[in-house]
Amino acid sequence: MAYKENYPSALLTEAVEAISSLPGVGRRSALRLALHLLKQPSEHVHHFTGAINDLCDNVRYCRICRMISDDEVCSLCADHTRDHRQICVVESVRDVMSIEATGQYHGVYHVLGGIISPIAGVGPSDLNIQELKERVQALPSPETAEVILALSGDVEGETTAFYIYRQIEGSGIRVSSLARGLGFGDDLEYADALTLGRSIANRQLFKP
Amino acid sequence: MAYKENYPSALLTEAVEAISSLPGVGRRSALRLALHLLKQPSEHVHHFTGAINDLCDNVRYCRICRMISDDEVCSLCADHTRDHRQICVVESVRDVMSIEATGQYHGVYHVLGGIISPIAGVGPSDLNIQELKERVQALPSPETAEVILALSGDVEGETTAFYIYRQIEGSGIRVSSLARGLGFGDDLEYADALTLGRSIANRQLFKP
Repeated sequence: MAYKENYPSALLTEAVEAISSLPGVGRRSALRLALHLLKQPSEHVHHFTGAINDLCDNVRYCRICRMISDDEVCSLCADHTRDHRQICVVESVRDVMSIEATGQYHGVYHVLGGIISPIAGVGPSDLNIQELKERVQALPSPETAEVILALSGDVEGETTAFYIYRQIEGSGIRVSSLARGLGFGDDLEYADALTLGRSIANRQLFKP
Repeated sequence: MAYKENYPSALLTEAVEAISSLPGVGRRSALRLALHLLKQPSEHVHHFTGAINDLCDNVRYCRICRMISDDEVCSLCADHTRDHRQICVVESVRDVMSIEATGQYHGVYHVLGGIISPIAGVGPSDLNIQELKERVQALPSPETAEVILALSGDVEGETTAFYIYRQIEGSGIRVSSLARGLGFGDDLEYADALTLGRSIANRQLFKP
């Protein structure tokens, strides 16, 4: 009797199934990782699983911007050298890290925790939109403040941006969105028609 | 203050470090996996880490062949339809699974649990070689039995094969090793000189 589809042990099968549930990890990689972990000292494996459990059980989110944080208020919201009248609205924790990595932005953030998607069953009430609305309403003289909608350019992103715009437009706050156009270093020849068309329509004054 | 090299939370940093200790997983993938796990329901994460802990804490090895097993004797060693007088010696659990997947072998195995490697500090006493010797000695009329050395073709593999051969040659058992030569479908033009040279020297009778 060969193993065929199966693994030589039920414990190994369970571990491979669990590991292959991760995105981008197939059953072959999962087997490789399971056998790697099996060869490690037991403290190492417990440290590995402990760090993951710890993250998922004890993670906290900033009371103000809903970013992952060790404290009640995250390090960005607690930083008085940043511009607290510029609020950059993003889908996820990862987007904050991407924008921070550019070093080009010195305002604060608001993490929605997802994007409006009727197909995935995510509506406005599943996201931190009400919190954003309250945050904008609490700003003194909102007409001198700004909300930057840094959402993706697909249908869900546009829908979410439009929904948020409708929620906060009455406050008089300036609402902007990310510039769209050709990427730096992009070749005209390979640009899609929509991007190219929009970057002609939204052309900018040449600054030599 | 941007995050720079760091992550927004110490818990996230710990989890990313732990996940990126896996082979072939960089820090970017580790971050992606950590944020994925963070979005899962807590039971799912506990099931994931539990399956890994369970594997590493409770795994058992077959008393006879040292393969991963749920029982004291693995399903292959317990299978009386297999030829127990053919013992295929392999480096790892994974090799057993690879050979089983071919469906071409109907004997039993012996898992060494590694390979002799002075550089990595692995000597013969770290492997299940003594167990193999005792197993061979316990075979009745060993001259009708066979040990197949299915080890890799590099220096460590050859060294280990030679060491095992010296340990068991006195018993009169037949010792064979895997056929080496061009792979099926391999192009002569791209074969390395050593493989090509050996496959000329070890040429086989043409069977049309």
